[in-house]
Amino acid sequence: MIERLSVTSDAREQLKDITDEVNSALRKMGAAGGICQVFVPHTTAGLVVNENADPAVCSDMLDWLEEAVPQGRPFGHAEGNSPAHIKATLVGQSATLPVERGRLALGTWQGVFLAEFDGPRQRTVVVNVVDG
Amino acid sequence: MIERLSVTSDAREQLKDITDEVNSALRKMGAAGGICQVFVPHTTAGLVVNENADPAVCSDMLDWLEEAVPQGRPFGHAEGNSPAHIKATLVGQSATLPVERGRLALGTWQGVFLAEFDGPRQRTVVVNVVDG
Amino acid sequence: MIERLSVTSDAREQLKDITDEVNSALRKMGAAGGICQVFVPHTTAGLVVNENADPAVCSDMLDWLEEAVPQGRPFGHAEGNSPAHIKATLVGQSATLPVERGRLALGTWQGVFLAEFDGPRQRTVVVNVVDG
Repeated sequence: MIERLSVTSDAREQLKDITDEVNSALRKMGAAGGICQVFVPHTTAGLVVNENADPAVCSDMLDWLEEAVPQGRPFGHAEGNSPAHIKATLVGQSATLPVERGRLALGTWQGVFLAEFDGPRQRTVVVNVVDG
Repeated sequence: MIERLSVTSDAREQLKDITDEVNSALRKMGAAGGICQVFVPHTTAGLVVNENADPAVCSDMLDWLEEAVPQGRPFGHAEGNSPAHIKATLVGQSATLPVERGRLALGTWQGVFLAEFDGPRQRTVVVNVVDG
Repeated sequence: MIERLSVTSDAREQLKDITDEVNSALRKMGAAGGICQVFVPHTTAGLVVNENADPAVCSDMLDWLEEAVPQGRPFGHAEGNSPAHIKATLVGQSATLPVERGRLALGTWQGVFLAEFDGPRQRTVVVNVVDG
């Protein structure tokens, strides 16, 4: 069971909460339990599972990543977006999440975010479920 | 098939080996093979799969993370634990591990660790199996 | 359904493209759809999913990791390869990837790489599929 979400990012860098969209995809697929895989088929965007209560957690994370992998550092990749590739690998392209009673069984403070590092763009997110 | 482990961390930062607890959960669920998902439903703790032979590997990793994301750096998140959120995302909240003959099919030197970055606390670890 | 690939790395550090080998394993197992887990049962090697078009993306990533976790920094682990352990945890040991029509449903620019950080060596990569 695979659903593909279309997600539009709004800035060069952004953590965009897609928790509701993933839960909608689970409902559409009629998934009751099992493992939900969320996968980003891009090389300059990734997937983050972290706090969706205080937006400062997201901006702090983007700030730290920018400091750690600065846009101004010289790199070999001619397109100039090597920092975006590196950041995507650091946060990861896939997460697997438990499903219970048709929804993601996340912690109280957790949300699922598309991590955009080279936007704004239209991105695809793959939601894939296997039964438990 | 979902089991929830309760894991108590003993320090502000710690890599706590939970390999035996995950294997016990597999036995309890009667899992023979497939994919085991280990998921941490928290935003300031994560999951590490690395060497469980020499404890210096774990302390080196925590030391490096502290150097990379220092507690003293100013951040926007008012609770003051942004470094813990960032470290959790860097190591990740979920790992998927192969299961064979009812046990995790890990490498010789691998163990599964709860990565505590804002403890000590009682944490939950979700163990979720789908058959192969 | 589990297949084990044998992958020989050619240098101390290398991102070695194993996408074709993983697709061959899927064919051998007769997997049509579902979730493919790729797992590295080692503690100084990991798994990266990123661009396989311009090789500079890979060398930029290795360069950045070397700068972030320098080989010359003193560490407690007596074997001297703590940077390799840390890099492996930063990129991760496992990835889950969607399978459609018997192949990995990757993005246009994505490839799957064994990330060698303490080579050259012969490494094992576990490919594990559960049906969707």
